[in-house]
Amino acid sequence: MHDLPRPYLLFLGEATDHAYAKTAFGIRYWCPEDAIAQYHLPGGTIDLGLPDLDPAAAAAAGARSLLIGVAPIGGALSPIWIDVLLEAMAAGLDLVSGMHERLADHPVLAPAARDHKIRLHDLRVPAPSYPIATGRKRSGLRLLTVGGDCALGKKYAALAIAHEMKARGMKATFRATGQTGIMIAGAGIPIDAVVSDFVAGAAETLSPDNAPDHWDVIEGQGSILHPAYAGVSLGLLHGSQPDAFVVCVAPKRTTLQGFPAFPIAPPEEIIERTRLLGSLTNAEISCAGIAVNASGLSGREASEIKERLRVHLSLPVFDPIVDGPSDVVDFLEARFAGGQDR
Amino acid sequence: MHDLPRPYLLFLGEATDHAYAKTAFGIRYWCPEDAIAQYHLPGGTIDLGLPDLDPAAAAAAGARSLLIGVAPIGGALSPIWIDVLLEAMAAGLDLVSGMHERLADHPVLAPAARDHKIRLHDLRVPAPSYPIATGRKRSGLRLLTVGGDCALGKKYAALAIAHEMKARGMKATFRATGQTGIMIAGAGIPIDAVVSDFVAGAAETLSPDNAPDHWDVIEGQGSILHPAYAGVSLGLLHGSQPDAFVVCVAPKRTTLQGFPAFPIAPPEEIIERTRLLGSLTNAEISCAGIAVNASGLSGREASEIKERLRVHLSLPVFDPIVDGPSDVVDFLEARFAGGQDR
Repeated sequence: MHDLPRPYLLFLGEATDHAYAKTAFGIRYWCPEDAIAQYHLPGGTIDLGLPDLDPAAAAAAGARSLLIGVAPIGGALSPIWIDVLLEAMAAGLDLVSGMHERLADHPVLAPAARDHKIRLHDLRVPAPSYPIATGRKRSGLRLLTVGGDCALGKKYAALAIAHEMKARGMKATFRATGQTGIMIAGAGIPIDAVVSDFVAGAAETLSPDNAPDHWDVIEGQGSILHPAYAGVSLGLLHGSQPDAFVVCVAPKRTTLQGFPAFPIAPPEEIIERTRLLGSLTNAEISCAGIAVNASGLSGREASEIKERLRVHLSLPVFDPIVDGPSDVVDFLEARFAGGQDR
Repeated sequence: MHDLPRPYLLFLGEATDHAYAKTAFGIRYWCPEDAIAQYHLPGGTIDLGLPDLDPAAAAAAGARSLLIGVAPIGGALSPIWIDVLLEAMAAGLDLVSGMHERLADHPVLAPAARDHKIRLHDLRVPAPSYPIATGRKRSGLRLLTVGGDCALGKKYAALAIAHEMKARGMKATFRATGQTGIMIAGAGIPIDAVVSDFVAGAAETLSPDNAPDHWDVIEGQGSILHPAYAGVSLGLLHGSQPDAFVVCVAPKRTTLQGFPAFPIAPPEEIIERTRLLGSLTNAEISCAGIAVNASGLSGREASEIKERLRVHLSLPVFDPIVDGPSDVVDFLEARFAGGQDR
């Protein structure tokens, strides 16, 4: 499992478009205590509202890693970043990257890391090995966010729920399964990069035994109804053995992103299918709510859709951004009062 | 995809126990035309009924690869094999291995392979990359063998069906998804070693577009009802988009091998679940029969079980070893007369 030294210096490169700095904004938003400073190259205009410090000054202020907070299309390391990355290593900072191109394969960065005795964290690369899953029921409570497609808010919903639980004084840990989530959490497993035989075992490793009233809130990936990724999602579901799941929906989207021949299943089908398949490793699995991603909807449309789902499914329905997840956490607190052995 | 130069010299090491030579016997049985000779070390007693030739003599007789046909516990290369493997490379033979320990990582074999310009085929290692699955329906017919557990006869059933189809003059190809199957077929993809994101894409690659009346008979892996491997099996099911599937059962086994807390699902549940999940990429998926692995059953018990299944499910039921698969191939010929566009 990745385990990242924090706090971070957030490196913003020469970016001028917020869309390329989603990673940096996500960290600033979800774990402000881990974002000690920002640094950009000449021409860069992204401002996270953090002190501008160069690597040496950030290290002196307590930073332990430089995190690449921008993601150019293609996922390659820009040649104009290399001097800053070398400077960071010289200042004793680890480097953290979610790019496709690996730091560890870079002809200049890799030897420099050895010289400076610092670590390069390539978050798209899983650990070399995980155990085969056992299917054994673990102690503690688990919630998994699921959905009918990729990229419709499963990470955001999980973060919002874990955040709300902690704000209420509940025991809760966000468990990351993708590179941005791993940067935010400082730990996690890039589940879709794990060799298929070990996916369920990696998911078991990600949420180990815990106190009976502790919640692991696990970031979902893909969809068990996706023609390319269902196997990843099913291994994650089985290894996570969730007690509860939240279905993330994006009502404006009608077909799978990039797969126009495949309609997105309605929430009730996702609920039924998740229960059917998830019951193999947790017979008590149940749906705890619907997270609505209101992208592209007017406020009125969103309200109508949420009300319709609420009436139809008799479950908490919430927009993690607009409403926050308090209804679903109320529901979980009531349902799981006394922990898993209620 | 692996593509192996044949025919093979089957290397039997110092083995004296048939149980360790299952790979060699499998090749001898399923593709006798590819097994040109055998060779063992002093003390070895396994006899496949082939000429005993050393690597140089086998190469002179037409062999193109030495295949390691024995699998000691642990899957490591025995130090006493190395001289023979070097001799084989010197004679121009590729080396083929399904062992866990990779030929390509061996400190003596890897440089020798470069010197002799021969290839080392490690069948547990998948190709470096596969595409993401598209879910596009391909031309041609596909059959997948499935089951409620690992290691209950899915490879054997698929080989028997493909063999019977070819014997009848039907167009058919066995598609291997595990290392022994790959050795027998001379090509294939070790599906459980593929990174999870690419499993369905690898399965699509394995059975490309084909003539409308051509059958790809695909070796199944694991089970969609297995707590550790269901993700692998689901990716294989989606990428294979089978028109027909055969459920392999081992009635004597009641719980998953190595997972005593998990009962094996009955055949009707496997049929229903395979249809439900498989319909995502092929709405016409249907069950074509039940293959019974009669290990541990008396002849009478096996007959009774087969008759009961036949009556209960109204499908062909056969023991691939005792009965052969002609009933199921009759069924497929009738049902798919005229190819996929019936």
